[in-house]
Amino acid sequence: MQRVYNFSAGPSVLPLPVLEKAQKELVNYGSAGMSVMEMSHRSKAFIEIAAGMEALLRELMNIPANYKVLYLQGGASTQFAMIPLNLMVNKKADYLDTGEFANKAIGEAKKFGEIKVVASSKAEKYTYIPDLDPATFTKDADYFHMTSNNTIFGTRHTTLPETGNVPLVTDMSSCILSEVIDVSKYGLIYAGAQKNMAPAGVTFVIIREDLLERSGDNLPYMASYKTLAAQDSMVNTPPCYSMYIAKLVFEWLKDLGGIPAIQKINEEKARLLYDAVDGSALFKNPVVKKDRSIMNVPFVTGNEELDNKFIKEAEKAGFVNLKGHRIVGGMRASIYNAMPVEGIKALVEFMKKFETENK
Amino acid sequence: MQRVYNFSAGPSVLPLPVLEKAQKELVNYGSAGMSVMEMSHRSKAFIEIAAGMEALLRELMNIPANYKVLYLQGGASTQFAMIPLNLMVNKKADYLDTGEFANKAIGEAKKFGEIKVVASSKAEKYTYIPDLDPATFTKDADYFHMTSNNTIFGTRHTTLPETGNVPLVTDMSSCILSEVIDVSKYGLIYAGAQKNMAPAGVTFVIIREDLLERSGDNLPYMASYKTLAAQDSMVNTPPCYSMYIAKLVFEWLKDLGGIPAIQKINEEKARLLYDAVDGSALFKNPVVKKDRSIMNVPFVTGNEELDNKFIKEAEKAGFVNLKGHRIVGGMRASIYNAMPVEGIKALVEFMKKFETENK
Repeated sequence: MQRVYNFSAGPSVLPLPVLEKAQKELVNYGSAGMSVMEMSHRSKAFIEIAAGMEALLRELMNIPANYKVLYLQGGASTQFAMIPLNLMVNKKADYLDTGEFANKAIGEAKKFGEIKVVASSKAEKYTYIPDLDPATFTKDADYFHMTSNNTIFGTRHTTLPETGNVPLVTDMSSCILSEVIDVSKYGLIYAGAQKNMAPAGVTFVIIREDLLERSGDNLPYMASYKTLAAQDSMVNTPPCYSMYIAKLVFEWLKDLGGIPAIQKINEEKARLLYDAVDGSALFKNPVVKKDRSIMNVPFVTGNEELDNKFIKEAEKAGFVNLKGHRIVGGMRASIYNAMPVEGIKALVEFMKKFETENK
Repeated sequence: MQRVYNFSAGPSVLPLPVLEKAQKELVNYGSAGMSVMEMSHRSKAFIEIAAGMEALLRELMNIPANYKVLYLQGGASTQFAMIPLNLMVNKKADYLDTGEFANKAIGEAKKFGEIKVVASSKAEKYTYIPDLDPATFTKDADYFHMTSNNTIFGTRHTTLPETGNVPLVTDMSSCILSEVIDVSKYGLIYAGAQKNMAPAGVTFVIIREDLLERSGDNLPYMASYKTLAAQDSMVNTPPCYSMYIAKLVFEWLKDLGGIPAIQKINEEKARLLYDAVDGSALFKNPVVKKDRSIMNVPFVTGNEELDNKFIKEAEKAGFVNLKGHRIVGGMRASIYNAMPVEGIKALVEFMKKFETENK
């Protein structure tokens, strides 16, 4: 059985060399005499894996020393609640509404404090990133929340809001490690791993240390950034195997040349696909050009029947998970780090062939 | 490299046939053309895995139809808070204090309501399970919490408290699937998977449906049993790969003859090890005999130096993770379902040899 080109929005394609290495080591890791899955999280062998993973992430993202890296469970959705639970002091926060998950984050935060939605592109079906006027920001907000890349709608921020002393908090689930960023501009970055980092089951939180002091003493200990940071995320058993795969992914990324190298590849992949869509008479992408994601590319024919035909024939030809999210319809190609350029080139060829056959 | 006998308390040994099957399928699962790690959790292939896993668990444990099975993240420690958050109506609950994790559960619950510790064996270093007088139970408690098996101290309940209409809630992390139980006696059973079920990263909650109605509307959606149950635990991306391994473990267990068969094996394993300890002049087990765990067997020489020598020599001989928890000291052999009888026999031989050499 040949491997397919997997355009799933998440969980998503992983690098083949990572899978092959994991396969080789699955029953017996190094000289451990056991699988990584069987290791005590307090064992020397596993502590080395965890520390190695964190060191690689710090190196790849150039994370400053005054930031803690936490590896947690529960996905970004759990962070939607943990962020207000931990960071709210004045019980006020600003949020940007740029997509489905941004909106869910707003809904959760409203359970804990006064939320101002500074800007929203909902009325235009989230097809752009709104321009922002810092004068409208809440001066004594506990934080400012945004979503760096909107997985469902295929938009991304290319500039950051000027929030002054208000810490910027961002959901980077669908674009972390895809392009060079300056971590020091953020108070907190969080990401479910199942797109660019690892299999589902681990969630990364990168938090500026001074913010840890905000966590109240009466929080459940599994929900307290302060407690989790103080115990290096090992308050209880962490999601060990997902962390191990994350380490392999980070090694793969480093060998490739790190984030600058993958960014160049990602931009090339996105260019190839957007050029194909824009140059086509059949397909179109609804997003304002300057705000287009380089990770998630929605495209539609405008004809539901034809969309379904495309998805079906694409699957037969080995391009899977191209069905768009039900909110947007049509197709969506998620082209994360592990999707090779060849996959995009082959998809573009298939799109051209389909267009010719369906004139 | 040969595999060792791994007596880790968790994460723990997995059945070798499970690891070998996972290895074979790692890069390419069936006809999917991708790894299970890369599958969308909404895909047909993965939904089949999740449904198959749940069906097997229901069959193995004979779970009645009016119970929901949830697969969550965050470990038992997260449940320590979710249980009071969801189940408290009168804001009162009874707890048994039979070990370190029971005690942690009490600490978390106290953040949410009035907790009565009905009985505690703490003063005797948790070496027994206290006798209970139902007259001391709180009549209008929202639930009664216990820990079925105490991993660190090596004790277990062999009878259940008579709580009448008060739902019995139990942490079964270190003994689930090890012996036949009657699920209908409980309101809620929870278990981190990393001992008898799967690699770390998934936590099972088996909850009687009427209790779901207690979850308040203002809970974070990832912390609400009601919301999680309504969406079959797929509110966001679940820990897919751990669930897949759980399915393989459940298949292995079913092929073996199910819980009655593994219970017989576990009782035989425990008997062999306790007989060796009790018959020895060097080793002893501090637990009251009737309350001895069949999953976790602590034993000490009474001499720290000799304990350390034993642990070191055992490791060289291929018996690893025998160091006891720092609270108890000495040694502990965790002999979960996946530890074969041969592992116990070999350990017993090694213990005898060590005793002879260290007279």
